[in-house]
Amino acid sequence: MEYNIAVVKGDGIGPEIVSEAMLVLDKVGEKFGHKFHFQEVLAGGCSIDKNGIPLTDETIEICKNADSVLLGAVGGPKWDDVPSAKRPEKALLGLRAALGLFVNLRPAQMHKALADACPIKPEIIGDGFDILVCRELTGDVYFGKHYRRESDKGWGETGADDMNYSVYEVERIGRRAFEMAMKRNKKVCSVDKANVLETSRVWRETMHRIKDEYPEVEYTDMYVDNCAMQLVRNPGQFDVIVTGNLFGDILSDEASMITGSIGMLPSASMNESGKGMYEPIHGSAPDIAGKGIANPIATILSCAMMLRYSFGLKDEADAIETAVENVLNAGHRTADIAAKGEKVLSTSEMGALIREQL
Amino acid sequence: MEYNIAVVKGDGIGPEIVSEAMLVLDKVGEKFGHKFHFQEVLAGGCSIDKNGIPLTDETIEICKNADSVLLGAVGGPKWDDVPSAKRPEKALLGLRAALGLFVNLRPAQMHKALADACPIKPEIIGDGFDILVCRELTGDVYFGKHYRRESDKGWGETGADDMNYSVYEVERIGRRAFEMAMKRNKKVCSVDKANVLETSRVWRETMHRIKDEYPEVEYTDMYVDNCAMQLVRNPGQFDVIVTGNLFGDILSDEASMITGSIGMLPSASMNESGKGMYEPIHGSAPDIAGKGIANPIATILSCAMMLRYSFGLKDEADAIETAVENVLNAGHRTADIAAKGEKVLSTSEMGALIREQL
Ligand SMILES: CC(C)[C@H](C(=O)O)[C@@H](O)C(=O)O
Ligand SMILES: CC(C)[C@H](C(=O)O)[C@@H](O)C(=O)O
Repeated sequence: MEYNIAVVKGDGIGPEIVSEAMLVLDKVGEKFGHKFHFQEVLAGGCSIDKNGIPLTDETIEICKNADSVLLGAVGGPKWDDVPSAKRPEKALLGLRAALGLFVNLRPAQMHKALADACPIKPEIIGDGFDILVCRELTGDVYFGKHYRRESDKGWGETGADDMNYSVYEVERIGRRAFEMAMKRNKKVCSVDKANVLETSRVWRETMHRIKDEYPEVEYTDMYVDNCAMQLVRNPGQFDVIVTGNLFGDILSDEASMITGSIGMLPSASMNESGKGMYEPIHGSAPDIAGKGIANPIATILSCAMMLRYSFGLKDEADAIETAVENVLNAGHRTADIAAKGEKVLSTSEMGALIREQL
Repeated sequence: MEYNIAVVKGDGIGPEIVSEAMLVLDKVGEKFGHKFHFQEVLAGGCSIDKNGIPLTDETIEICKNADSVLLGAVGGPKWDDVPSAKRPEKALLGLRAALGLFVNLRPAQMHKALADACPIKPEIIGDGFDILVCRELTGDVYFGKHYRRESDKGWGETGADDMNYSVYEVERIGRRAFEMAMKRNKKVCSVDKANVLETSRVWRETMHRIKDEYPEVEYTDMYVDNCAMQLVRNPGQFDVIVTGNLFGDILSDEASMITGSIGMLPSASMNESGKGMYEPIHGSAPDIAGKGIANPIATILSCAMMLRYSFGLKDEADAIETAVENVLNAGHRTADIAAKGEKVLSTSEMGALIREQL
């Protein structure tokens, strides 16, 4: 089969890590008899530099027409003074909206080989944990109206945002979460703030309605403040966490940090037809950009998610994941995950070792 | 001096722990020559049982007329089926609004004597940490309009909440945060989501304007997702964290859990005239209610905050805090903080030991 992939290398370390990931895809193609066609487009800071805006219609068009999108990272201090409506991050929000990427999958897994990097005590972590945060990505207060008004209490200028979820949006993300859980440990924890927010009450009512369609799945509700605690207290209790855009932003980052392997974590954002945007969860790390020392593993694992979720290529995805696991188990490390005194590989050396394993 | 304290013992373990705290206040009064008058009122589940609603006008009136409020905990599974508008938690939200308690101080400190209970690895914690979360408590999406509407996209019933902050509200909480920092380590980290929310952009602009009034304080901004990570990665970097009601709810609970001493953490909620409501951060723990084994320390330390912040009684507050510290350093433990095999004290034994130290 042939696949068209739009590639947004982005800013900072983006180009370096994405290049390695593209070579990994080439290698998978060779081995399994597929052809991946890459079309590079600009988004984020580099697009601001060239076009004055972080996301052009041309980029959107190419991403829409591709079978999926591979993204490195966008942003950096260079664009800190750009007015907020034109910041590099707007490229992410714009692509999510344009492609309708309503589900964001963020696995937070501890790699056993990297247990030492986990910030939580081993007594708590035990045998490790494997959480999948299923974050709604095109609704909530992110995509409600943002505006200013005068306070009706005479308290001056007021910033305001409309937080909301409709039944349809909750059903859509909720079903995805249950389907993921069916392929995993059959547990869904839905996180909201239903003791305060009407948005959350619609969320919770809807989840309670659809949970009956998945009788095999153990369902629980949790308040977001409690979830922020439980992730630290006992991450092993979770399988799939499903939550809204804002709570998902916070909790998925917290869960990532708890793995201790933030340079290793991929993500997938998908729409109803299965098209997706795949990217590492880490940022553009401008401080180490261009030095060839960034860890390409999160981006390479994002390609595995692309193969699995957008192209249905399960064996190919497994092959990449196994290759990464093997390289880590053999003790190979980039600078961000090396212990003191350990030998440190460059970005391209790490990429090459993973390809060798394929 | 004489002080009138409205006492909301509440539900679950509330009555047991508040009784111990009242005895501690009596003892402080004896020693320092003050008289504390207590007036008990109902709120939460016990008020639902007696009056059909979680918060009566009478309770509000008495709390308003008192010099401050001491609260145990409200809620429990007994009231899980009560319709959401009448749930026990509404008593908390109602009291915050009625008394105008716009600032919520949540210290998250690791007690050195309890370092073993901290879930984070000692390499990360180092010498411990001492964070003060300064959460805005009467604004944000908590107190905006909550309502349902039809989706304008044909997506069905939609829950909606109005998130907002006015310049005045941000100035008010911001100045409190800077004033607290001046008495501590002179660092303020303001947490928002200004890359997405207009509410946060007003928040950040206002903070940037008032920070110049406190040139000695080192000021930083942080996105809420990053803060959720940084609390796990390196809690020692923080002194005062100032944030809105919703982010404060999540981050203060996460910070509490990171101390490992959740049964020990007090809180203060205050209005512009210094009147406050003081309560432990833990819940009503219905599973252990009535057994006399709950840890009264968080409530006792809440009394210390009351003496310090509402009554300006610094020596008296210090005396309570030192007494607690001494009892812990001497190895005395209630069940929740005892290591395996350690001797376990009852609620009243722990209270008595603390009073002895005074
Ligand atoms: C950059 C920002 C707008 C974005 C978000 O909040 O969604 C980021 O934090 C993320 O999680 O991808
Ligand atoms: C019970 C609930 C409404 C409350 C809140 O969210 O403020 C609680 O979580 C708290 O932090 O005191």
